[in-house]
Amino acid sequence: MFIIGERINGMFKDIAQGIREEDPTAIHYWAKKQEEGGARYLDINTGPAAKDQVKVMQWLVEKTQEASDLPLALDSTNYDAIEAGLELCKRPAMINSVPAEWPKMERVFTMAAKHNSAVIGLAMNEQGIPKDADTRVALAMELVAAADSYGIPMEDLYIDPLVLPCNVGQDHGPEVMNTLRQVKMLADPSPRTVVGLSNISQGTKSRELINRTFATMGIANGLDAAVADACDRELIEAIATARVIMNLDIYCDSYVDVYIKQQK
Amino acid sequence: MFIIGERINGMFKDIAQGIREEDPTAIHYWAKKQEEGGARYLDINTGPAAKDQVKVMQWLVEKTQEASDLPLALDSTNYDAIEAGLELCKRPAMINSVPAEWPKMERVFTMAAKHNSAVIGLAMNEQGIPKDADTRVALAMELVAAADSYGIPMEDLYIDPLVLPCNVGQDHGPEVMNTLRQVKMLADPSPRTVVGLSNISQGTKSRELINRTFATMGIANGLDAAVADACDRELIEAIATARVIMNLDIYCDSYVDVYIKQQK
Repeated sequence: MFIIGERINGMFKDIAQGIREEDPTAIHYWAKKQEEGGARYLDINTGPAAKDQVKVMQWLVEKTQEASDLPLALDSTNYDAIEAGLELCKRPAMINSVPAEWPKMERVFTMAAKHNSAVIGLAMNEQGIPKDADTRVALAMELVAAADSYGIPMEDLYIDPLVLPCNVGQDHGPEVMNTLRQVKMLADPSPRTVVGLSNISQGTKSRELINRTFATMGIANGLDAAVADACDRELIEAIATARVIMNLDIYCDSYVDVYIKQQK
Repeated sequence: MFIIGERINGMFKDIAQGIREEDPTAIHYWAKKQEEGGARYLDINTGPAAKDQVKVMQWLVEKTQEASDLPLALDSTNYDAIEAGLELCKRPAMINSVPAEWPKMERVFTMAAKHNSAVIGLAMNEQGIPKDADTRVALAMELVAAADSYGIPMEDLYIDPLVLPCNVGQDHGPEVMNTLRQVKMLADPSPRTVVGLSNISQGTKSRELINRTFATMGIANGLDAAVADACDRELIEAIATARVIMNLDIYCDSYVDVYIKQQK
């Protein structure tokens, strides 16, 4: 599993202030810091407050790329903003995200094919987030078929089963694990899987403990990526350990440091 | 998942000394300490040095029961010692363990039926530990059939897929996870599952990190129990968290303390 660093997001005060004042200090800081921590991608989210989503996304993409060579995950429901950001990306990026809905899939997969981008496909549609694994898997299959019809290779499609906070949507936990496992059987090669990790602990105490526990359980069921805090050392240690246990990385005494180095 | 406290074992110096000098201080101490930590059973192992296995097992059972009301898991390859211990157990115990071999299964399941004991069945036979999940599952099925023929209810049979250290048997990790999942499909109701947790980290650095990561990954695949260190607070926190994520225990802010109290 690898981490898509979540920190360059207008929901955070320092990033919002940077956007408002056109001061890239915080963006540069978090780009470097997340790369050092162990991120493989950097998520870029303007936040809901930004008035001109297109302009702000372009500015964030430019400023982030001044500080880090990591590829970006453009995170927005505004597809014009994503497209404008993609034009500026120096490396193949990731689009975060598209639900299993037309015409959204048409717009997103067309952009992805043009820009050679990966895509996060959400296991939801107009009816919202399904209650059970089977419906999530059915929606994942719609995303697989749509992506394939636009020529997106399966290794560039990341299915997000959609994680709910364990204090309000506890019955979704085993359904998400079950979905992760089943997604791996939808196609050969199979699509990849991703979660928004911090959702699981929203509103709870011991957030880091719940986040890293969920991550390792996800890895045991085939989780490939997470939008998460790349600067949480205990999370990185847990992920590196789970990868060793699943025989995805070779054990050595310094396997945590090796994991971090591999991401760059 | 619950913990079978591993600490009353003649492999530890203080227990070996207690056995040698017939001084129950260390046995009393660890019985109480493990109960407070969050054990549901206490494993009792004479260790290889004890000359009279039967007598030492009896003594350990008596001394442990002086300090704790938890049920015991009698851990020996000497079935006479186990049988002698079972005679003294005040509560239904667990037999640790029997491989998928005749006439060992006959001896153990006969004892278990007589004493109303649970049994740990090892997914191995005369040929040793299998390399893959399928062979482990086939051996688990032999244990299921044998236990059933002696009238052992499935909830009293704990299949141990056999964990190898991740620094020497790394390819076994995913096979063990896969076995845990498949064992749940062998019968309805299904047998339970157990591992010797500390085996995964034998000879590695960061043993506790590897142990607790493996535990949470096991829980995500249906692991019910582990012979483990009940006094490792971070392990207990990880287990309690994984149980909340799997919707096995209800979330509340103090779910770790609730988990510990539930064990008694």
